[in-house]
Amino acid sequence: MPSLKDVADLAGVGVGTVSRVINNHPNVRNETREKVNAAIKQLNYIPNEVARNFKMQKSTMVALLLPSIWHPFFSELAYYIEDELDREGYKLMLCNSGGRPDKELYYLDMLNQNKVAGIIGITYNDIEDSVSTDIPIISIDRHFGKKITCVTSDNYTGGRIALKELIKAGAKKVAYLGITSSAYSEVELRKKGFIDEAKAQGIEYIIYEENDTVYNDDEYFENFFKIKEHRHISGVFANTDLLAAKYIDKAKQYGTRTPEDVKVIGYDGIQDNKLFHPILSTIRQPVEEMARMSVKLLLRKIEGKTLEQEIYRIPVMFREGETT
Amino acid sequence: MPSLKDVADLAGVGVGTVSRVINNHPNVRNETREKVNAAIKQLNYIPNEVARNFKMQKSTMVALLLPSIWHPFFSELAYYIEDELDREGYKLMLCNSGGRPDKELYYLDMLNQNKVAGIIGITYNDIEDSVSTDIPIISIDRHFGKKITCVTSDNYTGGRIALKELIKAGAKKVAYLGITSSAYSEVELRKKGFIDEAKAQGIEYIIYEENDTVYNDDEYFENFFKIKEHRHISGVFANTDLLAAKYIDKAKQYGTRTPEDVKVIGYDGIQDNKLFHPILSTIRQPVEEMARMSVKLLLRKIEGKTLEQEIYRIPVMFREGETT
Repeated sequence: MPSLKDVADLAGVGVGTVSRVINNHPNVRNETREKVNAAIKQLNYIPNEVARNFKMQKSTMVALLLPSIWHPFFSELAYYIEDELDREGYKLMLCNSGGRPDKELYYLDMLNQNKVAGIIGITYNDIEDSVSTDIPIISIDRHFGKKITCVTSDNYTGGRIALKELIKAGAKKVAYLGITSSAYSEVELRKKGFIDEAKAQGIEYIIYEENDTVYNDDEYFENFFKIKEHRHISGVFANTDLLAAKYIDKAKQYGTRTPEDVKVIGYDGIQDNKLFHPILSTIRQPVEEMARMSVKLLLRKIEGKTLEQEIYRIPVMFREGETT
Repeated sequence: MPSLKDVADLAGVGVGTVSRVINNHPNVRNETREKVNAAIKQLNYIPNEVARNFKMQKSTMVALLLPSIWHPFFSELAYYIEDELDREGYKLMLCNSGGRPDKELYYLDMLNQNKVAGIIGITYNDIEDSVSTDIPIISIDRHFGKKITCVTSDNYTGGRIALKELIKAGAKKVAYLGITSSAYSEVELRKKGFIDEAKAQGIEYIIYEENDTVYNDDEYFENFFKIKEHRHISGVFANTDLLAAKYIDKAKQYGTRTPEDVKVIGYDGIQDNKLFHPILSTIRQPVEEMARMSVKLLLRKIEGKTLEQEIYRIPVMFREGETT
């Protein structure tokens, strides 16, 4: 492989001049620039990016922190983030943080050392204390505060739509089923939208939640169905698709059929393969739009621009399946 | 952030000496090494990895090339590869090549320039011509020849197991359904195992295939069911789970029920969520073992070691679902 020195020798200039040409330094005469470029072409010289990064202290790598790439929502998100980064000439470093603070902080260190240009992340730990304002980080789904820009789906409107669709499908008495987490502040808005719309429509509703620190599938639903009035619910909005699918499965054991006895709506849209049933009625996350928006905002931060908003909420839509 | 110069000043040595200590150069006196390490500790100095890579021409980044991270098989694979790399102190760069040769060759260039330490990939293009023997690349599922080590599931045995399980479930006349691709040489062994076992057992079998260049869902199954004798098949081995699920769906339209009229086995094990039906009976890919083995073999190649085998085949197992 030809070296910088080979290029310099062929062009009859110094190594520093070749470096200035490669890095588009303005202080090079056109004649010299042409000689260097001709030599680069003749030798098929490829500038060493590691060396260039070293000089320019600039990385073209963006780290994506996810709890687990294995989850279908996250893998779809990663797919579009990589695609958008690729269009912009950036590369993606993937990290399954699994909620481990040490792994998350490690990548934050890399950012501080210019080893990555920015971070897009679904983080479980409060990293806000460790970062300064305007650091190139975009958070997805979790809003930490002013320091970290957040991209989410419009959870509040999603909750309102869910209530409306349950009513439209014929439900008279509705329930919100959720698993709460202190970190999931934005997801809480699904519940708020649901409640506000139920109040606006004068519909009776139940809120049933457990914290993820104590959550257990069997106990959650056992406790739910133990309460007699819960068996007369005719509409359920579960705050994730997975919870909706579990509810449908458990309800069947109690003789409650979906959608005959109860209409069920989830949130996410992870299961869109029509070959597997039930195909869930759901509030579909605008995953592609969230991914591309996250990259666009991150690149603006990397360029040093200030963003207009703290939170960017992407509109959601109802997708009808077999459960309403 | 403290610089190398700050460390050197505090330790009362030159910058070059600090650099030698950081890079574990043997030519440093113990006393000096201790002084430098004390200064590093006192200042909380973090060596710049970009700079170190520049000096050492060594990357700790491994590129993973996948057709699409969105596919559940690939996202599970990526999950375990990242986990295994993380244990070994390596980081993962993710690339959805989508079968685009330019993207694949781009990462090959990065490898040639030491910007990545190695590549693990499911590649669609014949990259063998572009690489030299012993270059740190591990191919998954596709065997290109001597130059690139390949890790796959034991496709041949998988085909044999599928035939045996269909017979065990009561099938009398069996069919292999496949979509062929010139690149998928290892997958062809699923068919070979199936045929060999059918012959050994003296069972009547049908091979039904179309090439992926002309494949179309509707036509594929229309042509299949048009042939009258195909409707009397009582056992189907589809060479992927997705094809198995499609077959089940189409067969239903022709009045053929699964598993009452026909037993169906797929290959992959992508659908392991018991909340969605049908839960496929399948030959489960040993995804975790394939991922960890790929990383182990790649690291040995990076260390310059020669591997004993060209192909590493990981044992598979039958997983019973609702379709046999």
